[in-house]
Amino acid sequence: MLGENVGVLQQLFSPSVQHTLDLIGIFVFAISGALLAVRKNFDVFGIAMLAEVTALGGGVFRDLVIGAVPPAAFTDLGYFLTPLLAALLVVFLHPQVERIQTGVNVFDAAGLGLFCVTGTTKAYDYGLNLTASAALGLATAVGGGVLRDVLANEVPSLLRWDRDLYAVPAIVGATMVVLCIHYDVLTPLASGVAAVTAFVLRLLAMRFHWRAPRAWNRRSTVREEQSPAPSRHG
Amino acid sequence: MLGENVGVLQQLFSPSVQHTLDLIGIFVFAISGALLAVRKNFDVFGIAMLAEVTALGGGVFRDLVIGAVPPAAFTDLGYFLTPLLAALLVVFLHPQVERIQTGVNVFDAAGLGLFCVTGTTKAYDYGLNLTASAALGLATAVGGGVLRDVLANEVPSLLRWDRDLYAVPAIVGATMVVLCIHYDVLTPLASGVAAVTAFVLRLLAMRFHWRAPRAWNRRSTVREEQSPAPSRHG
Amino acid sequence: MLGENVGVLQQLFSPSVQHTLDLIGIFVFAISGALLAVRKNFDVFGIAMLAEVTALGGGVFRDLVIGAVPPAAFTDLGYFLTPLLAALLVVFLHPQVERIQTGVNVFDAAGLGLFCVTGTTKAYDYGLNLTASAALGLATAVGGGVLRDVLANEVPSLLRWDRDLYAVPAIVGATMVVLCIHYDVLTPLASGVAAVTAFVLRLLAMRFHWRAPRAWNRRSTVREEQSPAPSRHG
Repeated sequence: MLGENVGVLQQLFSPSVQHTLDLIGIFVFAISGALLAVRKNFDVFGIAMLAEVTALGGGVFRDLVIGAVPPAAFTDLGYFLTPLLAALLVVFLHPQVERIQTGVNVFDAAGLGLFCVTGTTKAYDYGLNLTASAALGLATAVGGGVLRDVLANEVPSLLRWDRDLYAVPAIVGATMVVLCIHYDVLTPLASGVAAVTAFVLRLLAMRFHWRAPRAWNRRSTVREEQSPAPSRHG
Repeated sequence: MLGENVGVLQQLFSPSVQHTLDLIGIFVFAISGALLAVRKNFDVFGIAMLAEVTALGGGVFRDLVIGAVPPAAFTDLGYFLTPLLAALLVVFLHPQVERIQTGVNVFDAAGLGLFCVTGTTKAYDYGLNLTASAALGLATAVGGGVLRDVLANEVPSLLRWDRDLYAVPAIVGATMVVLCIHYDVLTPLASGVAAVTAFVLRLLAMRFHWRAPRAWNRRSTVREEQSPAPSRHG
Repeated sequence: MLGENVGVLQQLFSPSVQHTLDLIGIFVFAISGALLAVRKNFDVFGIAMLAEVTALGGGVFRDLVIGAVPPAAFTDLGYFLTPLLAALLVVFLHPQVERIQTGVNVFDAAGLGLFCVTGTTKAYDYGLNLTASAALGLATAVGGGVLRDVLANEVPSLLRWDRDLYAVPAIVGATMVVLCIHYDVLTPLASGVAAVTAFVLRLLAMRFHWRAPRAWNRRSTVREEQSPAPSRHG
């Protein structure tokens, strides 16, 4: 299994470029985790842990599913230290970081685009079928954020109707990658295009507040649904 | 390890029957996940994801524990698509689906009975001891529902004292399977009997509102315990 | 991979001693899970399950990450039965157990010290680097408690600023182990010293209510931050 790992993923980018992009994605995801931890009033260790989980959770889940153990997050020191750096920045500069929230969101969108592409590619390199690879690419991109919200005891913003589209851009990016693989045209360029497409879609979703519909005829009942009651007696 | 997989499980049912039963169980679990997502007012993608997690979560956990990677949920396209179909149905027909909630509960009970049997058998096929196999059978049957409630930010209904028995029927079914294995009498018939027993026990629990006791002398304090306060200061 | 398992860990303690210490740690962690389940008013099966998850969750996560499948929790009957015994005790004696909460906390501190050492050592035996080994040792020690709080739908007390230091003692213990490994002086004695150090640090943290700082200039805003509002709109 591990042998197959020399494959599509390697050809995509030169390792150094790939690695740098990974670290950037990890860094910005860690920032979002650390900022939520600050809002939840966690202590510095809680902030560091939420940063780690948010940045690495999606990739660890992907690696466990494809059998790539130990996950990259536990073999590459840079993957482990980058979230700590992000947490440190947030601990001392969170007012400034929150002020540049837009900037953070742009980086987060970049991480989303990158991870859905590399996650899909790595899953395929480990022998999963195209659909499963795309699903794992999505899980890689959004998994960390879901873990972040679960640990913060909040409903994952990924699932909430009142959040701008987040999953869709990742789904589009992952789908483009598997289509390229299917038609055997997955070049570094094609992968870049897929990542940029997901990135831009997420930016547009934030800019124009694109949202996904809810279930048929929910609109009328939204207020009552949002009341705390359900989660109380859940 | 994988080699052992040709074993008890294969003999249980013809693959096609086994596969069909699996898909039915996955479908009904997905329905329960999608319905909760609608109640929580998630968007259509949140509904689809909660349906996937509810339907496949228990099996993925089992497969990760026994080392069956990638998990079946990521290798069988039907396992992946069935929850999407369930989500689609719920998105457009949830008032009708909720109206036939009883019907859904009956199917859910069927899924519970089936999964505790197949989960236990597969774990044993992968070399786990009888107790661990039964425990994983239980985890396969209830794991998805627990993940569903955690992602919906609710206390898992599996754990709540004010819910009809859910774990017990699965424990009984899983125990029957390991006893059959121990006495070397695990025939398809015996497995069917175990699944039906768990199924019927769950139906009876719902019909007569069987509930498990709580810790000694809790009754007096239940009201105060149910107040939101604890979860607030958790 | 598995082959390497005959290694540092074996030399640490005689298997029987090691095993006994493990069971003690599992027992006390299970007690903490069962007590929370009682406070949350779960039924007896919910209490048993929360006890199992709290006691075994950290180790299962570690074993999945290092590829030690099936995890020890599923191969050693004692690991599985001990939490059930703890749950049984709590179900019938929880008023008394709560009365000796301090005693429980002392045992929990002992489990923390032990697990951070054995978790780190086992991770290193499976070929992880020193930093990753220490991180997994920390995860082994605190993972079960985090799962416990997530299943109870509470903010993990590990992350809360208003809790006495819990992660830090485990970090110190795990760090001491990796330093000993690095300088090739990891004797049973050294491991014992690391475990005792973590144990004592945790006791001191509880005794003197040591707490970690929060993010810069949070103090002023703590009250508003603690209001339920955030988790409502999370």
